[in-house]
Amino acid sequence: MPPLEPYSASLDYTYALGLYPALEALTRAPERVRRVLLSKQLNRDAAYEKLTALCDKHKIRTETADRLLRRLSGKDNCFAAAAVSKHGEEPNMSAPRHLVLHNPMDMGNAGTILRTALGFGFEDIAIISPALDIYDPRVVRASMGALFSLRVGFFESMDDYLSRNSGRQLYLFMLDSAAALSEINPRKDEAPVSLVFGNEGSGLPAEFASLGTPVRIEQGEAIDSLNLAIAAGIGMYAFRRV
Amino acid sequence: MPPLEPYSASLDYTYALGLYPALEALTRAPERVRRVLLSKQLNRDAAYEKLTALCDKHKIRTETADRLLRRLSGKDNCFAAAAVSKHGEEPNMSAPRHLVLHNPMDMGNAGTILRTALGFGFEDIAIISPALDIYDPRVVRASMGALFSLRVGFFESMDDYLSRNSGRQLYLFMLDSAAALSEINPRKDEAPVSLVFGNEGSGLPAEFASLGTPVRIEQGEAIDSLNLAIAAGIGMYAFRRV
Repeated sequence: MPPLEPYSASLDYTYALGLYPALEALTRAPERVRRVLLSKQLNRDAAYEKLTALCDKHKIRTETADRLLRRLSGKDNCFAAAAVSKHGEEPNMSAPRHLVLHNPMDMGNAGTILRTALGFGFEDIAIISPALDIYDPRVVRASMGALFSLRVGFFESMDDYLSRNSGRQLYLFMLDSAAALSEINPRKDEAPVSLVFGNEGSGLPAEFASLGTPVRIEQGEAIDSLNLAIAAGIGMYAFRRV
Repeated sequence: MPPLEPYSASLDYTYALGLYPALEALTRAPERVRRVLLSKQLNRDAAYEKLTALCDKHKIRTETADRLLRRLSGKDNCFAAAAVSKHGEEPNMSAPRHLVLHNPMDMGNAGTILRTALGFGFEDIAIISPALDIYDPRVVRASMGALFSLRVGFFESMDDYLSRNSGRQLYLFMLDSAAALSEINPRKDEAPVSLVFGNEGSGLPAEFASLGTPVRIEQGEAIDSLNLAIAAGIGMYAFRRV
């Protein structure tokens, strides 16, 4: 492969920056790891042994690259990284649970949401454009590697998503919905479900209510709305795999 | 009052940095606002009118202070700030719901948790040392002003908290607890409840299990644990005010 470059959205690979994130990538998706970068300063401890053993096992090239690590991370204390292909498995369109993020923009939120999705059995994720770059190394890091265990698909619009799916029960999380989350009995659903969450600032467009069942997470008047990652966490917990 | 200083944990006031956070402070806790700083660059729009009207109403001094705003925020685009006393109301020890954070350290998490707590009717918060500085302007900002609507108390240890409370039902959120959150029927509780969450990295000490009912949020094996703010959000939603 050609020399590695600083991250940009147009590259077909991203970086898991740091020893722990690199280990996560090697454990969760070794077939996608193209190369592993190591610092001369990396301690030869148990985590290092695990990392190099995984590289040996999967025949992944390692190289000492202190300058590149500094350049990629913008820090002096990033001692390992993995370059990871963005091309993973496509989402399973008939999976029992989809998480659909409509126009997500916040990197930290997105990483936390991905980690939570993996924890609650939402392994198929749909991102509706415009949206942040889900493969930005900051999202990878915030997801604690969960991104590499998920099947993530990108859709130009909600219509695009809907045209490639059928028979799914959509739940649209909106502040002014009539139905409260606790009134719904998610575990009895027979059809595969899609939980749909809007942008951090503006939420979902009002007209999305007609696409399925609008749902409200009961909350007091003292705050305008919940943080998106918190709302998605509460929603996915309610619809989690039993 | 003496001249305002850059924020430090030892000051008895903090800053709500930015127009929206300053408005939140003026709306939620005007009696705690000592002074409002404005930039010459601030647009004289509706939000500005609201801000100055609130200052007039509560007889709060405003001053133009571009240099101080830059120094406080480290940015060129912070056009307003409120200096807010840290001394608010003490927590109500017999409140129906307490949120207890044991050794929280992450600023962003803490702000999100405070905002969520306010949304679910947890208005009395106990912080057990050692802990982050909950009044750091970054927490204030992440809480979107919720900090100024809550009663926050500080305790030297869990024993200190327990010695100043009696008759509360404690729920201790721990990964390996026998009882799952969905098996508990929180809404039927008669006694006031305290939901206790541990540090972001290490969780609660195992011996805390004996202090009340240990609770586990059901999650798959694919992640080590949920993000603290997500776990606290799910827990508080389950125990929210009806």
